[in-house]
Amino acid sequence: MKNIPVAILGATGYTGAELIRLIEAHPHFEVAHLGAHSQAGKLAGEVLPGVSGRIAAMTLAAADATLPLNVELVFTALPHGAAAGSVFSALEAGKKVVDLSADFRHKTHAVYRAAYQADHPHPELFDEAVYGLTEHARDQLASARLVANPGCYPTSVLLPLIPLLKAGVIDTSSSIIIDSKSGASGAGRSAKTDLLYCELNESVKAYGLPRHRHAWEMEEWALGFAGSETKVRFVPHILPMNRGMLSTLHLSGNSSESWLDILQQAYGDEPFIKLLPQGTLPSTAGISGSNRCDIGISLLSETEVVIVSCIDNLLKGAAGQAIQNANLMFGLDETEGLATHALWP
Amino acid sequence: MKNIPVAILGATGYTGAELIRLIEAHPHFEVAHLGAHSQAGKLAGEVLPGVSGRIAAMTLAAADATLPLNVELVFTALPHGAAAGSVFSALEAGKKVVDLSADFRHKTHAVYRAAYQADHPHPELFDEAVYGLTEHARDQLASARLVANPGCYPTSVLLPLIPLLKAGVIDTSSSIIIDSKSGASGAGRSAKTDLLYCELNESVKAYGLPRHRHAWEMEEWALGFAGSETKVRFVPHILPMNRGMLSTLHLSGNSSESWLDILQQAYGDEPFIKLLPQGTLPSTAGISGSNRCDIGISLLSETEVVIVSCIDNLLKGAAGQAIQNANLMFGLDETEGLATHALWP
Amino acid sequence: MKNIPVAILGATGYTGAELIRLIEAHPHFEVAHLGAHSQAGKLAGEVLPGVSGRIAAMTLAAADATLPLNVELVFTALPHGAAAGSVFSALEAGKKVVDLSADFRHKTHAVYRAAYQADHPHPELFDEAVYGLTEHARDQLASARLVANPGCYPTSVLLPLIPLLKAGVIDTSSSIIIDSKSGASGAGRSAKTDLLYCELNESVKAYGLPRHRHAWEMEEWALGFAGSETKVRFVPHILPMNRGMLSTLHLSGNSSESWLDILQQAYGDEPFIKLLPQGTLPSTAGISGSNRCDIGISLLSETEVVIVSCIDNLLKGAAGQAIQNANLMFGLDETEGLATHALWP
Amino acid sequence: MKNIPVAILGATGYTGAELIRLIEAHPHFEVAHLGAHSQAGKLAGEVLPGVSGRIAAMTLAAADATLPLNVELVFTALPHGAAAGSVFSALEAGKKVVDLSADFRHKTHAVYRAAYQADHPHPELFDEAVYGLTEHARDQLASARLVANPGCYPTSVLLPLIPLLKAGVIDTSSSIIIDSKSGASGAGRSAKTDLLYCELNESVKAYGLPRHRHAWEMEEWALGFAGSETKVRFVPHILPMNRGMLSTLHLSGNSSESWLDILQQAYGDEPFIKLLPQGTLPSTAGISGSNRCDIGISLLSETEVVIVSCIDNLLKGAAGQAIQNANLMFGLDETEGLATHALWP
Repeated sequence: MKNIPVAILGATGYTGAELIRLIEAHPHFEVAHLGAHSQAGKLAGEVLPGVSGRIAAMTLAAADATLPLNVELVFTALPHGAAAGSVFSALEAGKKVVDLSADFRHKTHAVYRAAYQADHPHPELFDEAVYGLTEHARDQLASARLVANPGCYPTSVLLPLIPLLKAGVIDTSSSIIIDSKSGASGAGRSAKTDLLYCELNESVKAYGLPRHRHAWEMEEWALGFAGSETKVRFVPHILPMNRGMLSTLHLSGNSSESWLDILQQAYGDEPFIKLLPQGTLPSTAGISGSNRCDIGISLLSETEVVIVSCIDNLLKGAAGQAIQNANLMFGLDETEGLATHALWP
Repeated sequence: MKNIPVAILGATGYTGAELIRLIEAHPHFEVAHLGAHSQAGKLAGEVLPGVSGRIAAMTLAAADATLPLNVELVFTALPHGAAAGSVFSALEAGKKVVDLSADFRHKTHAVYRAAYQADHPHPELFDEAVYGLTEHARDQLASARLVANPGCYPTSVLLPLIPLLKAGVIDTSSSIIIDSKSGASGAGRSAKTDLLYCELNESVKAYGLPRHRHAWEMEEWALGFAGSETKVRFVPHILPMNRGMLSTLHLSGNSSESWLDILQQAYGDEPFIKLLPQGTLPSTAGISGSNRCDIGISLLSETEVVIVSCIDNLLKGAAGQAIQNANLMFGLDETEGLATHALWP
Repeated sequence: MKNIPVAILGATGYTGAELIRLIEAHPHFEVAHLGAHSQAGKLAGEVLPGVSGRIAAMTLAAADATLPLNVELVFTALPHGAAAGSVFSALEAGKKVVDLSADFRHKTHAVYRAAYQADHPHPELFDEAVYGLTEHARDQLASARLVANPGCYPTSVLLPLIPLLKAGVIDTSSSIIIDSKSGASGAGRSAKTDLLYCELNESVKAYGLPRHRHAWEMEEWALGFAGSETKVRFVPHILPMNRGMLSTLHLSGNSSESWLDILQQAYGDEPFIKLLPQGTLPSTAGISGSNRCDIGISLLSETEVVIVSCIDNLLKGAAGQAIQNANLMFGLDETEGLATHALWP
Repeated sequence: MKNIPVAILGATGYTGAELIRLIEAHPHFEVAHLGAHSQAGKLAGEVLPGVSGRIAAMTLAAADATLPLNVELVFTALPHGAAAGSVFSALEAGKKVVDLSADFRHKTHAVYRAAYQADHPHPELFDEAVYGLTEHARDQLASARLVANPGCYPTSVLLPLIPLLKAGVIDTSSSIIIDSKSGASGAGRSAKTDLLYCELNESVKAYGLPRHRHAWEMEEWALGFAGSETKVRFVPHILPMNRGMLSTLHLSGNSSESWLDILQQAYGDEPFIKLLPQGTLPSTAGISGSNRCDIGISLLSETEVVIVSCIDNLLKGAAGQAIQNANLMFGLDETEGLATHALWP
């Protein structure tokens, strides 16, 4: 029975649309409020081609509109900087919050400023926020009032990295080299020339250098979850596809111990992590539309290892992991409303 | 509770894979058997990148393997010609069948031969087979033992056409011109040069002329459902995208009566049909991943009307409608396990 | 030897970029001036990723900057409405002009107003402008001072249509139905949400209804070149690909005479028209990067004929035909600097 | 004037088709013979959608057919292993040869065997073959009888690497990490399931591990051209696009000296190498359809440098560089018949 009304702020972006889809197919959550910026006042169906029925007929509220009293949970899919105020207000109003922006992913103001080049309006909430990399944060999620949903790139990188860092098999004396590839939906729905179809189609490029914001997040939580002072050299690329993210980790270390066994012990029972047989590497086609993270390992030599990790950037990298976290916040089965099999092809 | 074991024959094609995804997320059906042709003996996970867990570990049976006793329902996603024998055997074994091939879509041997250039091995089943265009066949589906799942193009064309033909507003004195566009998944998963990525990408072409097989199906069921002797000029095209089908109907007739009202009366309460406001036309992005058919109308003049109809060829055009039909065959809510909102973008 | 300096106004759009590419590889034309709107003052290389060397280092002039004295020919690749003034000034300054906008494609102010919903600032130039559908305008092009380069859709439609209309084999008692499909580059380089990669990718939709501007152009020049009062029902669609345009003409008429023979007689010696064998239909892959128009015919019945016509919308549909016309204006071989073979794949 | 007749063996693959296009637009070369494997006996126009006119009407000869007497130059675009015999025969018949296969890229039988797992039928030609990385082999190309055209990945990697290795700024004490991304045309035109449109579209994956054949080629020629014993960790990926190759070099070394200056000194006058301003990185859109290699540098720290290099895999990575080499072999201007500006978009 549908019994938990939720609000989505930032409902007309790609992540917001994905939250709507997941929640409407979820057995316990129900969309009760849709907030939007410039589109406020329109019907959801005018702005979102994929919705129909009741949702299409809902009016989009302003981003700062008062939330309905019965709403218990708020998803904020707003730009960083803009999200913090909405998160603060929702908490004040007694709601639980899953924030999909970057605003509460860091534990210190100094790191936030370094990564986002701005002061944070509510640093007092840093301590309370739970960094929701679900597989490593279940204990805290059950009682969390505010969950900082991880970034897409950090999710794809930290999931394979944490158990291996804990096991001490990776050489961290020099930076870890991570070469990531993302579909275009990760860049958002802003009307910018460089996001036009003809600019991205049939093309690939690196961006975000010399240091992408997610590098700070990876380093902070490699330390946070694995206790390992790790430096990353992170180079993201944008590809001509809508969804999907693939991170190639070029690692050095001791491969005499089986890295796959280490991951198997950590994740063997996880519903949303698939470990491929040794030497087999995943594609993003395998996880598109699913909440899974697929991980494969190839040994190049005794000391050189390549790990490839794939997620759907809008699911395990954003809205899917947000629902996974929300399930735990409300005492539900973690897998409720989330697909394990991909929409393929 | 999962309590209806099902088999899928032809599990490793694109339609078979989509059936697996839908059934595994379905509250009542459960995959109990996977049949495949040349891939028999392999694990499903070796051939289908999108599956994980229990399904990935299932061994693919030969297409003609004996079905498990407990299986109650069989989906045949086999090539036309090959399907009929499997359908016959499954019925003999006491199973219900939804056949996604073309083998039972026609009522006479003569039409089948004209469309498929072959003799049919089991014409004795023609009479029993229910043509499962769900919205127009509910009465028969509840008690059906064998459902012939409609073709993708006919589904996209017949849904808008039937109510308008019944209302008598379309001029059928000359052929109805239908120009359809389909994603590449409709062409199947055979290793053919002309289906290679580089042959289809960045290109569009017409195919299947002078007369595509689905033209016979459209004409037979325009007559069957609307009682209208209709001739179609049907020209399909293949586009550089995985999923999605758009049919443009170039119609003539009397537009003084509102065609949208006629469709509204026929489909206003349908969960999987979305009628767009007058003058607004749908895109396939709006229905990808959903079981919906979206329909829009544009009046060009008093006698000239364009109707555009969109479906996901693997869902409402194949596996989705098959589940919709199966739900009714087993007395379940027709919408169980089927998405109304699209996976967008 | 490079001896004809040319200017391009609107150099930073997709058509402008294509003109640069063609002119720089042309044996007689040379880029001497690049005009741009909002990008004026920047280097061409900052705005156009595909250029290098001398061109990349050129500074973009304002659209209304005075043209260098030595420039003999101006290509205006500006929005309709904006182009007319630049055309007028260039003619005043003694230059020849090929205008790629729609501003001089119509012969009467009334039709221009109907199609473009605006008054024209220089209707006095209508009479002088030569409509540059090259294969049918050679006599006039040699002495033309102002050439109106045809629209992409009209080019793809008129080339197959004109000889058949002249031959009287097409039934024009009712509207001719034309269903066209275009790559996204035809929509231009404006920063609009509905042109974003994720909005167009994996999707198709119709647009421009109830009557696209190019319908007027088709009707005017079907009459102009073939003397036939023809009405068109024209429905364009946008596809997920950069380049390429395919028009499907759903025609009725008398097919006892060979339509292919009629086209063969008209175009058998044309360097940029390829007629496919009866029953074979072209794809846009076959003409991408080439200035060709490929035409195929399929007979559906004695009275029903489908013709498919393909061009690269940026070449034969814009910049390529502009160069073809410019070659004739300057007494050069019509094929100079233009590819007959496609960039495939 | 066209005066050098050439033959293309392997004319119906993607590289062969690109050679046809380039040669037909070339002022001095002319296609006199087209060889093909399984397609022999057909017309070129039946197999290659992009050609027209004289070329479309040419009959495809068997791969081992006797070459016309007047042919002076042979391009072999055959699979490795198959090429060597054709190369041998052509040389015996007194022709010059540009071999686009891998058969003559290595100097020792041992390395060839390691990389290609096969014995070589004509190792006696190893010494004579000139490895045609044009910018570094001009002296030898002028008098070469046999040119081994470099692999696509090695071209994209060696061009930025060689001057930097010579300058000694790169740390080669551990392996150089190279993460490459290629369009699908690099995988060839074989009818394989894993190259189907729906398998590659909307997906990315790594392949060729633990050691792709091109790793040997990179190492051999880093040593050959720069005298540097370099080890590479090379991980290629396949992307959903037809053309284009991007290599991301994750380098360590001394960045106090300007790496861009080093490349500027080496390549400042090269017609087909474009160096981007410091901190600006290229996209494959910028080089598609052009023979250019675009190179950009981003400094991550005092010791960490990312270099991104882009080529069109069918041009500078195959047919374009082959023509560049052939120009030099025949004393022509190196740039004849080759585009510097991209086909964009």
